[in-house]
Amino acid sequence: MITSPTLLLDEKKCRKNIQRMALKARRNGLSFKPHFKTHQSAAVGEWFREEGVEAITVSSVTMAQYFANSGWQDITIAFPVNIREIKAINDLAATLDTLSLFVYNASALHHLKQHLKYQIKVYIEIDTGANRSGLKPVQLEEIATQKSLIDESEKMTFVGFYSHPGHSYAARSREEIMEVHHDLLSKMDQLRQHYPKAKICMGDTPCCSVAEDFKGIDELSPGNFVFYDLMQRQITACTTEDIAVALAAPVTAKYPERGEIIVHGGAVHLSKETIEWRGKQIFGLPVTLHNDELKKGWAEPIPGAWVKAVSQEHGVVKCGQELLDETQIGDIVGILPIHSCLTANLMGSYYSLSDERLIK
Amino acid sequence: MITSPTLLLDEKKCRKNIQRMALKARRNGLSFKPHFKTHQSAAVGEWFREEGVEAITVSSVTMAQYFANSGWQDITIAFPVNIREIKAINDLAATLDTLSLFVYNASALHHLKQHLKYQIKVYIEIDTGANRSGLKPVQLEEIATQKSLIDESEKMTFVGFYSHPGHSYAARSREEIMEVHHDLLSKMDQLRQHYPKAKICMGDTPCCSVAEDFKGIDELSPGNFVFYDLMQRQITACTTEDIAVALAAPVTAKYPERGEIIVHGGAVHLSKETIEWRGKQIFGLPVTLHNDELKKGWAEPIPGAWVKAVSQEHGVVKCGQELLDETQIGDIVGILPIHSCLTANLMGSYYSLSDERLIK
Repeated sequence: MITSPTLLLDEKKCRKNIQRMALKARRNGLSFKPHFKTHQSAAVGEWFREEGVEAITVSSVTMAQYFANSGWQDITIAFPVNIREIKAINDLAATLDTLSLFVYNASALHHLKQHLKYQIKVYIEIDTGANRSGLKPVQLEEIATQKSLIDESEKMTFVGFYSHPGHSYAARSREEIMEVHHDLLSKMDQLRQHYPKAKICMGDTPCCSVAEDFKGIDELSPGNFVFYDLMQRQITACTTEDIAVALAAPVTAKYPERGEIIVHGGAVHLSKETIEWRGKQIFGLPVTLHNDELKKGWAEPIPGAWVKAVSQEHGVVKCGQELLDETQIGDIVGILPIHSCLTANLMGSYYSLSDERLIK
Repeated sequence: MITSPTLLLDEKKCRKNIQRMALKARRNGLSFKPHFKTHQSAAVGEWFREEGVEAITVSSVTMAQYFANSGWQDITIAFPVNIREIKAINDLAATLDTLSLFVYNASALHHLKQHLKYQIKVYIEIDTGANRSGLKPVQLEEIATQKSLIDESEKMTFVGFYSHPGHSYAARSREEIMEVHHDLLSKMDQLRQHYPKAKICMGDTPCCSVAEDFKGIDELSPGNFVFYDLMQRQITACTTEDIAVALAAPVTAKYPERGEIIVHGGAVHLSKETIEWRGKQIFGLPVTLHNDELKKGWAEPIPGAWVKAVSQEHGVVKCGQELLDETQIGDIVGILPIHSCLTANLMGSYYSLSDERLIK
């Protein structure tokens, strides 16, 4: 029985999300290197393996160590290399068949050149408009310098260019997502004119979910699509039916006069991520659970209800009379998260609806 | 050596915060029952024990179990009781000298009455204006009904009333905090007219930090003051010098043309909490660390620098030319958190500057 806040995982929805993306990669002749930062779970990783996935992407050395321990042999750490972690990087490189890193500055490359003990592969990260990290595609001189530094090193092999167009998260329609996507394709295409043998990898859930044409791309590494969430729904990258996780939050109080329910489910469970949803800033959307038969999953969000506020442990659910009447103290309400990566990171494990047990 | 994002704890500042609050409680003849939800650490808990603390407050059954295992015998779970956790509650009640719970609805009280196996104490939570949880002080009939239900049960003993005036977090000056405080004192005083023997407990860091007069209050249970943070600084509940934790974030990239540094330190380290600070929405403030001698701690926030954005692992630090010139790839920048409760919850352990090792 579920007694405290627990992250429910609908395996059917999750596997469908995985299969859809794996199929899209195959259909386009792309190598599928899914990002595992969202689920961070060896168990969910196995569902990818069943779809033929062999190479994965993660966002930290710690995550790489975790998945190396789960038997993954080809791991890309999609985060600008942190040279303080050189020992752990060498340990990983010694263990794995293929360790790939992101580098885009000379200082880190010099450090790697001096201290690497084993062979690694290197992507140069390209900033196609997110303005977060990477070199701009027009910085051809800088790119050439770094490519030379990689080529000069006996321990590093240049793979190609990686871009996470995080600005797709600002999109609010399929057309806006496709604008970002086409801009990325065109920028990467220009780069490829100079480096015809370089592999081109991209990895954001909005573009990878919506686009069908990946001309010039070799590898796909989205992450969030495994669960999706309300932010992706807002971006139009998924439907609410695709969302594969919901927080099970026990009801601890009812306030009919305020039209509010208090649940155990707060910032340490959902995170403090919000989106604007129909004119309101929300922290999640409640869904009905079959309290006696959880494996039935959940339906669409309850009309007129939303998570209005979270403190460390409390969630304040705004709702209509119907939900107030139906809900008793001690019931469980489901909450679709705004950002499943952060919710999953906080929760650390999943309650599988089909297996009716905790998995990690 | 620190290689990846690590939460630094300045023991001197932390002990000073603890001593100051313990002294204030003693000076006012109050019982000090600090909230341990902020640090969630057995090691930090010991520093409270050294100040004579014997009874503590937590915000979940899980946290109560953790501190029971660290030898605490008098624990209040300051969260509306979740009746699904009755087994764990009974287990705790069997182990502890004193377990106190929060109840403020008849349905939960009936459930406890039927299922409790051991003696517990009960506070009725009072909502003095935060509009989150508890009964309003004017709901005298409802309060009387619940008090009777508690008195009728052989397993429950009524202690008194508890209020967390969370609306003090909206304050932006000492005057505004004092308004909330005096309003609470007056509301609790009215309640005490009806229940002269009831203990009155309050527990928000802003009021407990600023107020000197606690007339009518018996017990003090603030939590955040142990570390403080930028939100408390903004509320005027502390100075930046009082803030006892800072995230050590390795620098992985520099963008002089954008005036930005990229650090490993993102939403899974700092949380997504923000405040408006000098007209900007910020995720933290950078401080200089002595990279070779961490035990020297950190100084005031670096002028003209702030954390502008966080994604899952990345932090984008906006800064001036001076910091850009001084900072090298591989250096560590300190970041004062917006909300130390959420940062500490995400990080899970501390690097003690004085001991130069990880503690939990």
